[in-house]
Amino acid sequence: MSNNSSTQLPVIKISDNEEFATNDALAIEEPLEIRLEYGSANNRKTQNISVTMRTPCNDAELALGFLFTEGVINRPGDVNSIEYSFIACAENNENVIRVSLKEDVEPLLNNSERNFYTTSSCGVCGKASINSIKTVSTYSNSTTDNQISADILYQLPAILQQHQKVFADTGGLHASALFTLDGELISVREDVGRHNALDKLIGAALNKKLLPLDDYILLLSGRISFELVQKAAMAGIAIIAAVGAPSSLAVQLAEEFNITLVGFLRDQRFNIYTRPKRIILSKYEDSY
Amino acid sequence: MSNNSSTQLPVIKISDNEEFATNDALAIEEPLEIRLEYGSANNRKTQNISVTMRTPCNDAELALGFLFTEGVINRPGDVNSIEYSFIACAENNENVIRVSLKEDVEPLLNNSERNFYTTSSCGVCGKASINSIKTVSTYSNSTTDNQISADILYQLPAILQQHQKVFADTGGLHASALFTLDGELISVREDVGRHNALDKLIGAALNKKLLPLDDYILLLSGRISFELVQKAAMAGIAIIAAVGAPSSLAVQLAEEFNITLVGFLRDQRFNIYTRPKRIILSKYEDSY
Repeated sequence: MSNNSSTQLPVIKISDNEEFATNDALAIEEPLEIRLEYGSANNRKTQNISVTMRTPCNDAELALGFLFTEGVINRPGDVNSIEYSFIACAENNENVIRVSLKEDVEPLLNNSERNFYTTSSCGVCGKASINSIKTVSTYSNSTTDNQISADILYQLPAILQQHQKVFADTGGLHASALFTLDGELISVREDVGRHNALDKLIGAALNKKLLPLDDYILLLSGRISFELVQKAAMAGIAIIAAVGAPSSLAVQLAEEFNITLVGFLRDQRFNIYTRPKRIILSKYEDSY
Repeated sequence: MSNNSSTQLPVIKISDNEEFATNDALAIEEPLEIRLEYGSANNRKTQNISVTMRTPCNDAELALGFLFTEGVINRPGDVNSIEYSFIACAENNENVIRVSLKEDVEPLLNNSERNFYTTSSCGVCGKASINSIKTVSTYSNSTTDNQISADILYQLPAILQQHQKVFADTGGLHASALFTLDGELISVREDVGRHNALDKLIGAALNKKLLPLDDYILLLSGRISFELVQKAAMAGIAIIAAVGAPSSLAVQLAEEFNITLVGFLRDQRFNIYTRPKRIILSKYEDSY
């Protein structure tokens, strides 16, 4: 079985020195170029914004989410259309996506140019990276009093795993998922790149007009890098939980944006790195 | 304990609804800007080549490995010096590294500009990405008859794990390791970014004048993306093994470069995706 996200390739499986030739499902990885079309009707410009290696599927969401989380556009209403650009070469059919902005929208192209990191006059460092995100974010501080109970948190990874369809086939994909505070799954997106999975998820939420996402919880299937917290912060997410470990700078950025950051969520355990007040522990009383 | 690669931060650990406040080691993530200095003595130019989020440590190796695996320079002999650029802001001390090329060396700046992906006139697709790597690689085809036995392969992940020092503390790092075909560990490098871990490893091998690396085996702690096979191909590696799954394009690139690609190497099992002849299975004869 082949679909957009996985493909069958021949493989020799070795187990205890016995070999067995078969086919195996692999996650598809292909480049996607995001092209931006903008400017007035009589002076329309086209610019290549990014080339990312991604798993095909939900490409329009990926493009929309990327442009928003990188600060190139401020709202989905800036966008006129998102369509594949077809090129003569047959193999290319869905690897260039063209995002056409409305005529009166001026994209913030400087924001995407260097991934925020070096836009500060101070130079390159973690603090400058955090500050530059503050200057472009629409939702700079999560002031929500929303809470989630530990009992619900424990359940989320199993729910995510049930819905990671391509991962189940291939073992090769990262996932991002959005849940309500009651633990109801809203959406899951998968990709070979963890930043792409999150951009797809945020793109889908933008399409549903759910932003800011401070009434939801973001679950990540792996580790928490600075870039993932950056994208979550841009979408106004107030609670991030992940199955894996955070980096130092991910924690610092969460702290600055009042985001509750939870890591190592597995086996009825987790760590809270920032803003613990949004997590409620159930207290069991002894009945004696 | 804090060192260059990890730091202690406060954390609340939750286990079965009990909380425990402590400190936890986290992998450090900080931006590194790689600046290239090149040109004749009377016309010296400086250019920002890349900003990557990395774990500090082995930054000179990272810069050298990156410039080589991205095709900006062809040999370590092109480099005059690699040094940190110190900036006024105190927090920045080791986040800009300046690579000064010898006067007669012309860097191939186009190669790094778009990560190879869109340099082909044909446009963006997997095939074009593979072809563009062929045009810049020094070692375009691994013709080696070297072999490694399955019995040695089985042992490598455990040896790697013993040497993943920062991962053991933080759970937050990827690793790349180089072994001889007899299973002897040559070097291990760790980073929050898997591509950085591999660039550091290849940078270290360049410093030791080990290239092409077709007498060694590369072990990756996670999944195998296109980008990792690209970097391995640029270094002339002929056998790649990984604990995780490969992507479709990683397999296609390995196929084109005659690289033996092994995935899911764990629990006395593995899958061979390409060039199986370099793997020897031991055949146990019954003694009766």
